[in-house]
Amino acid sequence: MAPVDTNYALLTDLYQLTMAQGYWAAGKTREEACFHMFFRDYPFEGGYAVACGMAQLADMVEGFRFTEGDIDYLAGLKTADGRALFDEGFLSYLADFRLTCDIDAVHEGTIVFPYEPIVRVKGSIVECQLLETALLNCVNFQTLIATKAARVCRAAKGLPVAEFGLRRAQGLGGVWASRAAVVGGCSSTSDVLAGRVFDLPVSGTHAHSWVMSFPDELTAFREYARSFPHNCILLVDTYDVVEGVRNAITVGLEMRERGERLTAIRIDSGDLSWLAKLARGMLDEAGLEDVGIVLSNDLDEHLIKSILEEGTPVTSFGVGTKLATAYDQPTLGGVYKLSAVRDAETGEWIDRLKISESAAKLTTPGVLDVRRYYHENGTIAGDMVFDELRGVESAQIIVDPLDDMRRKWLAGKRFETLLAPLARGGEVVLGAEERNAQAARQRAAKGLETLDESQLRMLNPHTYPVGLELGLFERRRNLVAVLRGLA
Amino acid sequence: MAPVDTNYALLTDLYQLTMAQGYWAAGKTREEACFHMFFRDYPFEGGYAVACGMAQLADMVEGFRFTEGDIDYLAGLKTADGRALFDEGFLSYLADFRLTCDIDAVHEGTIVFPYEPIVRVKGSIVECQLLETALLNCVNFQTLIATKAARVCRAAKGLPVAEFGLRRAQGLGGVWASRAAVVGGCSSTSDVLAGRVFDLPVSGTHAHSWVMSFPDELTAFREYARSFPHNCILLVDTYDVVEGVRNAITVGLEMRERGERLTAIRIDSGDLSWLAKLARGMLDEAGLEDVGIVLSNDLDEHLIKSILEEGTPVTSFGVGTKLATAYDQPTLGGVYKLSAVRDAETGEWIDRLKISESAAKLTTPGVLDVRRYYHENGTIAGDMVFDELRGVESAQIIVDPLDDMRRKWLAGKRFETLLAPLARGGEVVLGAEERNAQAARQRAAKGLETLDESQLRMLNPHTYPVGLELGLFERRRNLVAVLRGLA
Repeated sequence: MAPVDTNYALLTDLYQLTMAQGYWAAGKTREEACFHMFFRDYPFEGGYAVACGMAQLADMVEGFRFTEGDIDYLAGLKTADGRALFDEGFLSYLADFRLTCDIDAVHEGTIVFPYEPIVRVKGSIVECQLLETALLNCVNFQTLIATKAARVCRAAKGLPVAEFGLRRAQGLGGVWASRAAVVGGCSSTSDVLAGRVFDLPVSGTHAHSWVMSFPDELTAFREYARSFPHNCILLVDTYDVVEGVRNAITVGLEMRERGERLTAIRIDSGDLSWLAKLARGMLDEAGLEDVGIVLSNDLDEHLIKSILEEGTPVTSFGVGTKLATAYDQPTLGGVYKLSAVRDAETGEWIDRLKISESAAKLTTPGVLDVRRYYHENGTIAGDMVFDELRGVESAQIIVDPLDDMRRKWLAGKRFETLLAPLARGGEVVLGAEERNAQAARQRAAKGLETLDESQLRMLNPHTYPVGLELGLFERRRNLVAVLRGLA
Repeated sequence: MAPVDTNYALLTDLYQLTMAQGYWAAGKTREEACFHMFFRDYPFEGGYAVACGMAQLADMVEGFRFTEGDIDYLAGLKTADGRALFDEGFLSYLADFRLTCDIDAVHEGTIVFPYEPIVRVKGSIVECQLLETALLNCVNFQTLIATKAARVCRAAKGLPVAEFGLRRAQGLGGVWASRAAVVGGCSSTSDVLAGRVFDLPVSGTHAHSWVMSFPDELTAFREYARSFPHNCILLVDTYDVVEGVRNAITVGLEMRERGERLTAIRIDSGDLSWLAKLARGMLDEAGLEDVGIVLSNDLDEHLIKSILEEGTPVTSFGVGTKLATAYDQPTLGGVYKLSAVRDAETGEWIDRLKISESAAKLTTPGVLDVRRYYHENGTIAGDMVFDELRGVESAQIIVDPLDDMRRKWLAGKRFETLLAPLARGGEVVLGAEERNAQAARQRAAKGLETLDESQLRMLNPHTYPVGLELGLFERRRNLVAVLRGLA
C-alpha cells in the first residue's frame, strides 16, 4: 500500500516534456545517456548525510505511466500564440512510453558524502530526463530529513526521540519526513498514516486541549489514566507546571494503588531544563522515581545537546517542526547531471561535461560508481568515485576534485562498492528488505559507527576524503582543457 | 481529480486518536467544542499573509473515513507492555465515524494577519481533534508559500514570475506549493501534475542537459528552435554565456528569416545583472530587440529587488527552491486552539482558555469571527476579532491583545466578515469558484491593493491593527484573573 496513489509520470517539470519532444523530433529517442544524482554541500554544516528516498523512487518507477487523461491534458496545452504545444505524434509516443532504464542507487541508510553519485540512471535520454524531477524531489528531501534525524538522535545520546512534526511539515511531504526521521534514528513518529504505510512505531498521548476540555486539570489527568492505564504520559503545562506536576503525582500515586504505572510526564513550554529538574525533585520526593520526563517544544540537535550538558533529568524527547522541515536548511540541493551519451552506431559511451566558472560546479564524466575503503579498525578511510567502464588503476589513488594536490593512496584496503541495482530494464529489482524503513534505520546506525568521532562532530567536523580515481581525474582535466580550447 | 488519492483520516497524530478514545471512554463523544486556527507571527518579517490551503481542507473533509484496513491497523497497535492500545468498542465507533461538524474559513487569497482566526471548527470534540493535524498541515504550509509568492511577485514589479521548485521541494508537498505559488501571484509553474490537477498555467523550455546531449551548443539551439518555433527560450550558460548569447543570436536571426521569433534567452548562473546587460546589448546590436531575457538561479524577493534596482534589462524571472520551500522560514507555525465547549444539558457555550506565562500565548475564548473595516479610500482600517454569539458593542472598539493601551474606534466604517462556511454538518459547502486557484489568485491581488504601501514594505512594515472587540477583551481578562486565582 502506498501512502498516496498519484501519477508519478506527471510529477515533473514541463521542460522535461518539451525536451522529450525535442529528442523525439531530432530522432534521438533511442540514444542512450547516463545521469548521476549527487549533492555538493554537507547539510547542516555537518560531516555526513544519510541517504533516503530510494523506496519512494522504486514506487515512482513502478507507477510511471502516462494515462489517457494525462495525454488529453498535454494535448490541450497551448503556446502563448494559441498553437498546440505538443505534437500529436509525440503524444502517441508518450501514450505508449514505458521505462526500460537501469537505475542504480545506494541503499537507504547508507552514509553518503558530497560529490559522489547516490543514484545513477542509464537509459534512453528521454527516460533519463522524464525521471529527473521526481527522483530529485524524493531523494533530496528524504536524505535531508534522515540526516537531520541522525544529528538530533546523536545529540540525544541514545535517549528515544519521537518525531511529531506533521502539523508544521510542508504538506504531504510530512508523511515521508516521518519515515525518513525513523530511518535517521528516531524511535517513533506521531504520524499514523506513515506508521501504517511504512510500518513505523507510532507514539503519542494527549494535548493541552484534553486538559482544557475538562472542568479542571486533576479530573482531566484522572480520566486519561483511566483510559490508558498502560500508556499514560501526562502533559503538565496547560496552566501551571508546578501545579501540573502536583496533579500528575496525585494521579501517579492513585495508579500505583491500582497496580498501574504512570509512564511519564511531558513538559512542552518554559525553561525545559529548569522545569525538568524541579519536576524530577517533586516526583522523587513523592516516591515516583520510575516516572519518566518527556521534553518537547521547538527542539533541535543544538537545544538537546545543551539540555543534556546541563545534566537535565530527561528520559525522552519529542521533536517536531525543526526536524520535519529541516528548519535551518530546508533543502539539500542535490543535482542530476548528464555524464555520458552512447554513440548509437559504435555503442561506445562518450564523456559529457558541464564546465563552469567555478570548479565546484564542474561535473564528472563517465558511468560512475563509488568504492568505500575501510581502515582495519572498521572506520571508513576514503570514498573513490570511479568509472565503471574503465576500472581503477592499481595504485587506487583518489584526488580531491577541488584541490588536485590532495591525494590519497588506498591500495590494499578493504572496500565495498556503493551503487546497487534498483531497476533493470525499467523493472524494479530492489528487494523488500531494501525497501523497508526499519532495515534502513539499522543500516544507518551501523554506518554511523564506521565514522570517526571527528566526522560526527555537530559543527566543524573533520572532512572525509572523497575523491576521483586518478585516471578519471586526469581524463576530466583533459576534457576541460579541450572544451575551453586550451588543448 | 485530486493530485493524490490518500487516506486523510489517518493523516493525523496518534494522540488525536488516543484522546478520541479517552473522550469516548469518558462519555464525551457528543460534547461539542469550538477550535480556531491562527498564527502568531508575520512570516518573513513582512506585514501580511495570504491565506491558502482551504481547497485541500475541503478535499480532506470529503475524504475523511476510517477504512476497514485502517481499523485493522489500529487494532494491531500495542502499548509498551504488549496490550492492545485501542479498545474494541472504540474501534467500532471509529469504523462508523462520520464528520458532522461545521467549518468556517476565510477564502483562499484573503489577506490575513496574526492573532485572527483563519479557520474555525465547531462540532463534537472528537471530530475537532481528529481534524486538527491535517488541517494545520495544509493551511500552515500553503499560507506560507502563497505569502512568499506574493512577496516575490511584488518585488518583481509586475514582471512574470514562473515557479519551478519541485525538484528541491519537500516531497509531494511541492505539488501544493506550486498551486499556492500561483495563488500568491506567480504567473505559471513548471509542475505538470499541479498544472493538470489544479488547472494552473505551466511553463518551461529546456535544461543544460539538452545542450550537452548534442555535439555543440549551436546544433542544440537549432534543434530546439526547430521543435518549438513558437515557444523558444534558449538557455545560454551551459558552457560560456557570451558564446551562448552569440549562438542564440545566430538562431534568433535564422528564426526571423523563417517568420518565427526567438521568445527569450535564459541566464541561470553567474552575475545575473551584469550578464543580462551584456546580453541585452548583444541582442539589440543584432536587431533582436524583441527577444526577452529570463533570469533564474536561487532567486528570492531580496535578490529580485536588487536586480531591478540596478536597472537590469530582464523580462521575466524563474524562482525555485527559495519559493517552493520558503527557504528563510520553512514553516508558518499556525496553531489550533480550543476556545469553548458546549454544556450538553443547557446547550450553552462555555469559554475555554489556555493561560501561559507569556501574553503572546494566551488564547482567546468564544466562538469567534473577524470583521475587517475599511477606510473610505478602500484601504483596510483594522480587523476586529469578535464573539459571534455575543455580538459587537456599539462603539466598535478593538484592543491590541498584547498591549491593552492600544485601542482603536471603528464605528461608522464599512466592514465585511471574513469567515465563510466551508462545511455544514460535515458536508463541504464551498463552491467550485471558492476552490479554484485562479479565482484565489485574483482575490489575493485585489486584497493586496487594499493594503497601504507601508504595510507592503518588504522589511519593517507598518503593523496593521488587529484587536479583540472590547467586550471580548474584557471577558478574556476576567477569565484569566479567575484562572490565576486573582478574582
